[in-house]
Amino acid sequence: MELLKERIRKDGKVKGTDVLKVDSFLNHQMDVELFAEIGKEFKRRFADCDVNKILTIEASGIGIACITAQFFHCPVIFAKKNQTKNIAGEVYTSQVESFTHGRVYNIIVAKEFLGPGDKVLLIDDFLANGAALEGLAKLVKDAGAELVGAGIVIEKAFQPGGDRLRAEGLRVESLARVKGMSEENGVEFVD
Amino acid sequence: MELLKERIRKDGKVKGTDVLKVDSFLNHQMDVELFAEIGKEFKRRFADCDVNKILTIEASGIGIACITAQFFHCPVIFAKKNQTKNIAGEVYTSQVESFTHGRVYNIIVAKEFLGPGDKVLLIDDFLANGAALEGLAKLVKDAGAELVGAGIVIEKAFQPGGDRLRAEGLRVESLARVKGMSEENGVEFVD
Repeated sequence: MELLKERIRKDGKVKGTDVLKVDSFLNHQMDVELFAEIGKEFKRRFADCDVNKILTIEASGIGIACITAQFFHCPVIFAKKNQTKNIAGEVYTSQVESFTHGRVYNIIVAKEFLGPGDKVLLIDDFLANGAALEGLAKLVKDAGAELVGAGIVIEKAFQPGGDRLRAEGLRVESLARVKGMSEENGVEFVD
Repeated sequence: MELLKERIRKDGKVKGTDVLKVDSFLNHQMDVELFAEIGKEFKRRFADCDVNKILTIEASGIGIACITAQFFHCPVIFAKKNQTKNIAGEVYTSQVESFTHGRVYNIIVAKEFLGPGDKVLLIDDFLANGAALEGLAKLVKDAGAELVGAGIVIEKAFQPGGDRLRAEGLRVESLARVKGMSEENGVEFVD
C-alpha cells in the first residue's frame, strides 16, 4: 500500500536495526483518515471472505480494527490482556509472549462473543515474532470459529512471525512489509 | 441520546447496584455502527469548539474516540497505562486510581503530541468516580493545551465523578446518565 509506505518513510523513526517508531500516526497518536484508507484496503483484500467479526488485541490494534470494521459492517472484539472484574463468566484464553514488554501475559475473549459460524478476520498494527497473532488464532480455534486471515499494517518481514504463520496456512495480508532498516538509510520495503 | 439508552436497556446487564455490563456492544465487543451515531452526537454537542485533538485512555476508549474523530477530522491520542520501550523520550504523566481493577497506575502521553495551541476533547466510555478523566485533564493542563470538555458515553450519575468535575468547571457531556440500577428493575436514567 503505497500511501502507507510513503507515510512510514516520512514520519517513521528508526532506532537501531529493529525498532520502527510510528507513534505519530499509528499507535499512540492515530491518524484516522489514514486508518480509513487502511480499512478500505483490508476490505478490498478480504472482500470475498464473508467476514462477520473482527478480532484484535488491546490496545494499539483497536483503533485500526474499529475503522476497518466500518467497511465490513461487522462488530469488533478486542482480546483483553488481563481479566478484570467486568468480565465475569467464561472466557477463551491463550498466552502471549511480548518481546516489546519482555513478559508473558494472558489474553481473553468472552465465550459469548465467538463461536461456530463466525468468520473472523484478525487485525493488528504490527507483525514481528507473531506471538500476538498466534494467541488470537488460538482463541478463534478454541471457539470453533473460522479464521479467514489476518490483516496487518506493518510486518517486520526480517523477523520470523509472518513466514511461520503463512507456512502454517494462515492467510496474512500485510500492507507494508519491511525488509530491513537502519538509522542511516531508513526503511527498506519488500518488493 | 435515546438510541443509546434503548440499547443499554436492551443489552446492558446489571450486577448488584453498581456494575453495568455493556460488553456486548461497548467495551469488549464493539458495535461500530452505534459508535458512529455516538460520534455524530459528540460532534453536534462540541461543534463550536474547534477541537483539533481527541484524547482518550487505553483500552476501551480507543474505538469510540477513533470513530468520533472521523466527525471532527482530527487525530486521536490515547494515553498509555505503562511506559514501554516504544515510547522513548519525554512524556507527560499522571496517576489514576482504578476502582474497577483495584490499583493505581500511571498514564502517559508523549510531549510531542500535545502542546499550547491544541484544543483537546476527552472521550471515554464510562464516567464513575472520575479518576481517569481527572488524570487525562491533568495531562492536557501540563501540556499547556486547552481542554474544551469531555464526551462520555455512560455516566454513573449516582457516583461522584461527574458532579465534581462539573463543579471544577469542566464541560462534561454524557450521552446516557444512569440515576440508579438494580437487577430487579434494570437501569433508570436521569431525566
